[in-house]
Amino acid sequence: MPAERDLKAWLNENPLPFASLLGIVFTDVSKDRLVAEMVVRDDLCTRPAICHGGALMAFADTMGGAAAMVNLEDGFGTTTLESKTNFLAGAPAGSRLVGECTPIHKGRTTMVWQTRVTIDGGRLAGLVTQTQMVLAPRLPS
Amino acid sequence: MPAERDLKAWLNENPLPFASLLGIVFTDVSKDRLVAEMVVRDDLCTRPAICHGGALMAFADTMGGAAAMVNLEDGFGTTTLESKTNFLAGAPAGSRLVGECTPIHKGRTTMVWQTRVTIDGGRLAGLVTQTQMVLAPRLPS
Amino acid sequence: MPAERDLKAWLNENPLPFASLLGIVFTDVSKDRLVAEMVVRDDLCTRPAICHGGALMAFADTMGGAAAMVNLEDGFGTTTLESKTNFLAGAPAGSRLVGECTPIHKGRTTMVWQTRVTIDGGRLAGLVTQTQMVLAPRLPS
Amino acid sequence: MPAERDLKAWLNENPLPFASLLGIVFTDVSKDRLVAEMVVRDDLCTRPAICHGGALMAFADTMGGAAAMVNLEDGFGTTTLESKTNFLAGAPAGSRLVGECTPIHKGRTTMVWQTRVTIDGGRLAGLVTQTQMVLAPRLPS
Repeated sequence: MPAERDLKAWLNENPLPFASLLGIVFTDVSKDRLVAEMVVRDDLCTRPAICHGGALMAFADTMGGAAAMVNLEDGFGTTTLESKTNFLAGAPAGSRLVGECTPIHKGRTTMVWQTRVTIDGGRLAGLVTQTQMVLAPRLPS
Repeated sequence: MPAERDLKAWLNENPLPFASLLGIVFTDVSKDRLVAEMVVRDDLCTRPAICHGGALMAFADTMGGAAAMVNLEDGFGTTTLESKTNFLAGAPAGSRLVGECTPIHKGRTTMVWQTRVTIDGGRLAGLVTQTQMVLAPRLPS
Repeated sequence: MPAERDLKAWLNENPLPFASLLGIVFTDVSKDRLVAEMVVRDDLCTRPAICHGGALMAFADTMGGAAAMVNLEDGFGTTTLESKTNFLAGAPAGSRLVGECTPIHKGRTTMVWQTRVTIDGGRLAGLVTQTQMVLAPRLPS
Repeated sequence: MPAERDLKAWLNENPLPFASLLGIVFTDVSKDRLVAEMVVRDDLCTRPAICHGGALMAFADTMGGAAAMVNLEDGFGTTTLESKTNFLAGAPAGSRLVGECTPIHKGRTTMVWQTRVTIDGGRLAGLVTQTQMVLAPRLPS
């Protein structure tokens, strides 16, 4: 894991394949607060043309996973155990989702992260709470 | 809404933009049970190369929304209020997710749908429970 | 509904039967923030002697329901559609749970409230997010 | 842990304090299906006189915890990580809640249990899905 000041570059230069497909860009990254953006492209929409709930959840899930990852010690991994989303307003095609992910709990075996997703930094579109399990390094066999 | 025997063709011929991007195909559709498939393409993955949790949630959300839609009376709409996912096993790149969506509750104002997502119809990868609000037709003003 | 300055007295003088059984007391009530307390009596515990998860959820659910209620217009009602809890630390018998309930969303048809439950105002024991449906007055038939 | 045929007696004879307060009785217990009942006493209600959502959640949480426990190896423990409830119908005072708890996932580190709660075995009142973490025995220090 790079130094904290380099986390943003590291995340943006090594995107997960699905995060690339969605066009997610991290704009501010520290160990206790991550901010990312995703433009609501037409192909991320439902009908009528607002952001598909699945795209919003994928956006937030990417952030929660990254948040756990930048808090892991070397050799440890993470996996999402569960995720809960409340949908609060539709984000129209062409708007920009801004997600802010902060910790509820950072423990040794689990972490809980919450992501507020707004439309262009204003109205709340969704709130996502997810539990990440911390995976210990596999011992050599 | 087409007759029940034509729902599958109708859903596959009028895919939501984001469902197209993900490659979701409905294989069996009735008002009380929908089955769909999604191949875990490389660009739907996280690292290591297993299906990104967001892609699995988007797959299930598409099914729950479709499930509500095929149960609506003419003029009514639906929106997802909230969604909860438990992740149970990673689906490797190249595998095929099979989702089966069945109703927990079909009410006048809300519906609750649950989707079991398996890897190639076998091991359970995730369980998604979502609440759909039923939107009454807008009266002409 | 009484004036905002009288909401606390009103809630404490008209407790729900189950809130009485649990010993829930409101200590600060406004339309955008409610605080309540519940002592972890021995009969609210699991084994080992920490607060039963169900008692914590009941405490928070009482607060979310009250929060919705104090925001309703005359004649309207509310019901909980769904609730999600993350458990973060066990509260020992004899400790005092302090809950702080704030709005995520206050809409015309649904409200979403989140309650942080701490042990004696310190360590976070649980986080509860719940959706309240707003019920319109029944018209006379 | 007693033999499987004796689990019901063991659970009913060693109730958790909060389960006693609520009057929960197990009526059928195996490692893959638990059934329990709880009468909606007046003091378990909200207003109007239907079962308080918190009482329903506590009922189901008791079942999910018991379900995990009867599947543990000697020396292991369990704790609830998170719980999600959908409320579907109000159970009137005097009715009897019947809960049926079955496994979604039984893994080495986590289990997921789902409890369907019906009113007198008929109408579905709520659906509860919860994740139990499996706690390894503490090594002697």
